[in-house]
Amino acid sequence: MGLLSKPIKTLDDLFVHTLQDIYYAEQQITKALPKMVAKVTDPQLKQAFQTHLAETRNHVSRVEQVFEMHGESPKAVTCPAIDGIISEANEIMGDASDPEVLDAAALASAQAVEHYEITRYGTLAAWARQLGRNDCASVLEQNLNEEKAADQKLTAIAEARVNRVAV
Amino acid sequence: MGLLSKPIKTLDDLFVHTLQDIYYAEQQITKALPKMVAKVTDPQLKQAFQTHLAETRNHVSRVEQVFEMHGESPKAVTCPAIDGIISEANEIMGDASDPEVLDAAALASAQAVEHYEITRYGTLAAWARQLGRNDCASVLEQNLNEEKAADQKLTAIAEARVNRVAV
Repeated sequence: MGLLSKPIKTLDDLFVHTLQDIYYAEQQITKALPKMVAKVTDPQLKQAFQTHLAETRNHVSRVEQVFEMHGESPKAVTCPAIDGIISEANEIMGDASDPEVLDAAALASAQAVEHYEITRYGTLAAWARQLGRNDCASVLEQNLNEEKAADQKLTAIAEARVNRVAV
Repeated sequence: MGLLSKPIKTLDDLFVHTLQDIYYAEQQITKALPKMVAKVTDPQLKQAFQTHLAETRNHVSRVEQVFEMHGESPKAVTCPAIDGIISEANEIMGDASDPEVLDAAALASAQAVEHYEITRYGTLAAWARQLGRNDCASVLEQNLNEEKAADQKLTAIAEARVNRVAV
């Protein structure tokens, strides 16, 4: 969740605030992913990041759609958690000279980002249903399912790397 | 991952650095959970946090065990991601006066913490296997499995809350 811009008194306030948080997070990810695409060397990983960049742009649009469905203007609030994950990724990747180590660090950072998004979209969809907004929940679950699929794809790439070394 | 204390040149450096990161995260969680236990009102949620506090203390011990198995002294490095998740949790929970909203915020924050740990333990176990250290991977996977179970328990509590409102 992002830093507070106004007091949270109701579940609706909490929902809108967390929507502002994930809106910020998705925007930061659209900025971070092209740098990761440029840096990694594993072709499968490069491709996975490219595909996810296109998906992430769709996620931004879907979050804007939920704001509108809910009668709110899209607005982002700073989220220290996603900033922390991305700054750590940049630091580790900036430092790694070995391509294997750089790819491993990039993969781990991307999975940390995916897990942050999975937990927030899961929460947002549950709160939307609790607020009687199944329509908003359905849109949020489209993003949730794509984040889960992206994480599974990254896990498969990670496992292939482990097996390649183990053989 | 935590902020760098020394350059990351090899996968082994990356493994040890990420172990230092999760060691810091687990320590912060043992400090944050008692405050959450004291604040939440839902008895199931309070019980889940209490159980997980005992598990978290075991996780700290298991991480120390992996440091020792790997010939390293246990050391923590600051991790901005977990600090961000916890500071956001404190801010939202400090602001919420409605017990329902406070419990919803606490549940969401705890799930964000679990997901951070799940991704890091998953990565650490994969890297341990890649480094030929299946023994370290097995210990890390014990923590991973308990974090996954804790997250599933929180999801069940969240779903029960949604259904309670929907009925």
